[in-house]
Amino acid sequence: MAKALEARRMPKKDYEARVPLVREELIQLQVALQHAGIRMLVVVGGDEAAGKGEVVNLLNAWLDPRGVQTFAFHAPTEEERQRPPMWRYWRSLPPRGRAAIYFGGWHADALAQEPKSPKELADFNRMLGRLVHFETLLVADDTLIVKVWLRLARAEQKARLTELEKDPDTAWRVTADDWKRHRAYDRSTRLAERMRRATHLPESPWQIIDAADIRARNLSVAQHVLARFKSHQLHRRVAPKAAPRPARVVALRREGLKLLRNIQLEHHLTEEAYAAKRDKWLGRLNRLVRAAAAQQRSIVWVFEGWDAAGKGGAIRRLTSAIDARDYRVIPVAKPTDEEKAHHYLWRFWRDVPGAGRVTIYDRSWYGRVLVERIEGFCRPDEWRRAYDELQNFETQLTDHGIVVVKFWLHLSKEEQLRRFRHREETAYKRHKINEEDWRNRKQWKGYETAVGDMLVLTNQKQAPWHLIPADNKRFARLEILKLSCYQIAAALGEDI
Amino acid sequence: MAKALEARRMPKKDYEARVPLVREELIQLQVALQHAGIRMLVVVGGDEAAGKGEVVNLLNAWLDPRGVQTFAFHAPTEEERQRPPMWRYWRSLPPRGRAAIYFGGWHADALAQEPKSPKELADFNRMLGRLVHFETLLVADDTLIVKVWLRLARAEQKARLTELEKDPDTAWRVTADDWKRHRAYDRSTRLAERMRRATHLPESPWQIIDAADIRARNLSVAQHVLARFKSHQLHRRVAPKAAPRPARVVALRREGLKLLRNIQLEHHLTEEAYAAKRDKWLGRLNRLVRAAAAQQRSIVWVFEGWDAAGKGGAIRRLTSAIDARDYRVIPVAKPTDEEKAHHYLWRFWRDVPGAGRVTIYDRSWYGRVLVERIEGFCRPDEWRRAYDELQNFETQLTDHGIVVVKFWLHLSKEEQLRRFRHREETAYKRHKINEEDWRNRKQWKGYETAVGDMLVLTNQKQAPWHLIPADNKRFARLEILKLSCYQIAAALGEDI
Repeated sequence: MAKALEARRMPKKDYEARVPLVREELIQLQVALQHAGIRMLVVVGGDEAAGKGEVVNLLNAWLDPRGVQTFAFHAPTEEERQRPPMWRYWRSLPPRGRAAIYFGGWHADALAQEPKSPKELADFNRMLGRLVHFETLLVADDTLIVKVWLRLARAEQKARLTELEKDPDTAWRVTADDWKRHRAYDRSTRLAERMRRATHLPESPWQIIDAADIRARNLSVAQHVLARFKSHQLHRRVAPKAAPRPARVVALRREGLKLLRNIQLEHHLTEEAYAAKRDKWLGRLNRLVRAAAAQQRSIVWVFEGWDAAGKGGAIRRLTSAIDARDYRVIPVAKPTDEEKAHHYLWRFWRDVPGAGRVTIYDRSWYGRVLVERIEGFCRPDEWRRAYDELQNFETQLTDHGIVVVKFWLHLSKEEQLRRFRHREETAYKRHKINEEDWRNRKQWKGYETAVGDMLVLTNQKQAPWHLIPADNKRFARLEILKLSCYQIAAALGEDI
Repeated sequence: MAKALEARRMPKKDYEARVPLVREELIQLQVALQHAGIRMLVVVGGDEAAGKGEVVNLLNAWLDPRGVQTFAFHAPTEEERQRPPMWRYWRSLPPRGRAAIYFGGWHADALAQEPKSPKELADFNRMLGRLVHFETLLVADDTLIVKVWLRLARAEQKARLTELEKDPDTAWRVTADDWKRHRAYDRSTRLAERMRRATHLPESPWQIIDAADIRARNLSVAQHVLARFKSHQLHRRVAPKAAPRPARVVALRREGLKLLRNIQLEHHLTEEAYAAKRDKWLGRLNRLVRAAAAQQRSIVWVFEGWDAAGKGGAIRRLTSAIDARDYRVIPVAKPTDEEKAHHYLWRFWRDVPGAGRVTIYDRSWYGRVLVERIEGFCRPDEWRRAYDELQNFETQLTDHGIVVVKFWLHLSKEEQLRRFRHREETAYKRHKINEEDWRNRKQWKGYETAVGDMLVLTNQKQAPWHLIPADNKRFARLEILKLSCYQIAAALGEDI
């Protein structure tokens, strides 16, 4: 039997003759990746004892280690459990032009246990949905995803484990767990098939590779990587990264613009009335933020608004009610070079707060459908797709129990002008205003349209937009405090 | 009494007249920081209820938020506990040209409990030593550290807590813990004094600021930051970042060169003898790595050696005995722009493994005293200082229970030439050799001297150098396996 099997194996000589050619092509592939700025993710999944670790090590040995990193995920750590499930995979993504090898991939999360109850099944399907979304979104961002599944028949698995165990020098490679998993072969094969079927996407399909013959397996994996890369290059849409600035911004949804223009901007509030109410609401906010922390719930605030609408001041008022150790303010400016080499959501995923913490964004991921749309920093298909991606991102946060509070601070064009002038006249405020602010102001109409679309297309039950009339700073700050309290209280099921 | 106190306070009108000037200067300071590439860290410590949080918020409001980040540290998280204590502070450091504000600073670690037993005292002193080393090392890297301590007398503290509690709208600011800490006023004041005395360094002194008068306190903090910045600029040694390449590399310690030249390079080992021994040692290594993980001990391997000495191959042999989910190989290349904007040790701190994990460095922090010294990428005072800094870094790892295994792979000049030629002739190895390798080879003597100095000056009991004769690859790999096993076993107190 062993002889018969051996006869079907690839002879060592053949293997050794072919390896140098494959290695040379892999090195060329890496150079081409770097050159074209394509990100490559190789997922090595497979049945027990099929040699996932060996294949990962081999790819590592064959590729130039300076352009590739390997990731393998254990059970989530405390830090990982505190964030939405996809957080740890987002963190691991390589920049454009580089490759990463994933031992088991993000797919291993779907192999832990067969869902049984209707609730388990719903959770399972939601998880598969997240995996599919993750890959779809990366593929659209010029990522080549290569997924191989090393298949080992039940009898082969047994033979391999027995053989390793026989030799005292390799017996350590076989543990009691391996045998336990061998006995559960049928069940795990079924589960793996189910996962593969759900994540077998046209642009990131699974390739099943027979792992019985080790040499043939190694070559097949490498050749599949090469083939996928060639096909990616063939079908790659070569589009300029930057589109020209659009001549005119055309609304996707007219009702957004109406919404915006109907905001009542005039409000009066005396300093005294404000001070009294402010302290009351700050006290409530403090209590609610502490209640959220006690429940391990995090809070994310998103501040968007016109230049000079008072985002910074409102944030400072807010944070005066929160322990300085519990919150972080993240001002979102132009992406750095490192950030540009990643998916635009990457930098926001990176900062998702741990359990019970608060993160406040001064501008946010909505830049994608505002400044990037208006200035042509991304292509039309990119910002159009973004409404969906942004909603999905926030759903992943809220599904994880994070409270997402979003504000649009609205200002009249006249009030903005007044504030710009005031900034220019005040020495310590002059740094807040520059050419760009004046340029943006000239595009008021375009921004209005883009904001309207954003408000309509990303307004979700769990993460609604609050529109704040901001011509009166005191009124705006108080509104922000109040609405924050209401939304957090509702999310926690607490009284105000 | 309250009236008398009030009379001594700074009038609101005076305060409001002076704030705009201070704010303007702070904004100018930030521009100057950025321009000169100086890193600024502001530590806000102080007695309970002295207003640390208010001062942090105020600095945040007065500074341009795009150039400053705030950090406050709770009790260490699981992730932080798994690493040496200074890890979380290293992670937070801003790049050159930017500022960070620390609520409590790294100094809060020294305020938790008064040391009593001799062991506690020794730990306490070691901790203070780490704080001092941290600041010294940053100051030498053109970092301006501004440390203020907000002082509040016992009676003032009581008055402030009582006043806040009386008003129902601000009562939430006072917790039971605040009163508990108030009762422990004398003890914590004593402990804080002790900490300040130990960390009051000539180039990063503490400034005590009276916090009784809130307006005066705010201005004093801002003015102290401004004053320290001015003095820093005055005394700053303006040295070119890069020194010219030294004409000749002069040994600091002649015995290092001798050590190196005495290595016996010829060894014989047949393929069969090697294969048998290798599997035995791989088995042992696997057992030891798992034993380390079971004890939550991490392992750091450092591979240094001549170009083409076989570091990559040796690492692959090693990792074939370790579960792919448990280790990470980090090839150390030229620093990226982000890394260059930080202290040279920053990128290595970032990757310190969590409990029970393994990190393998293909080249390492020793680049500072090798390539950077030889090529003049850093100044002579910088690489001279580095021997100490590198030893201290490793001591922080080993003190935390991390096993640090260091190898120097030694090669004859003839064998290197043979391997260079072989690489050039083999298609899939050609990417491993370039102009730089040939250039380095021409400086063999200089490198020999630098390596010798390194071996002598950074050889520590807990992190010794292992010299590996690497002309024979099989022999070298086996030696590496064996010595790794011996060192790990000794560190764990296990048998081989």
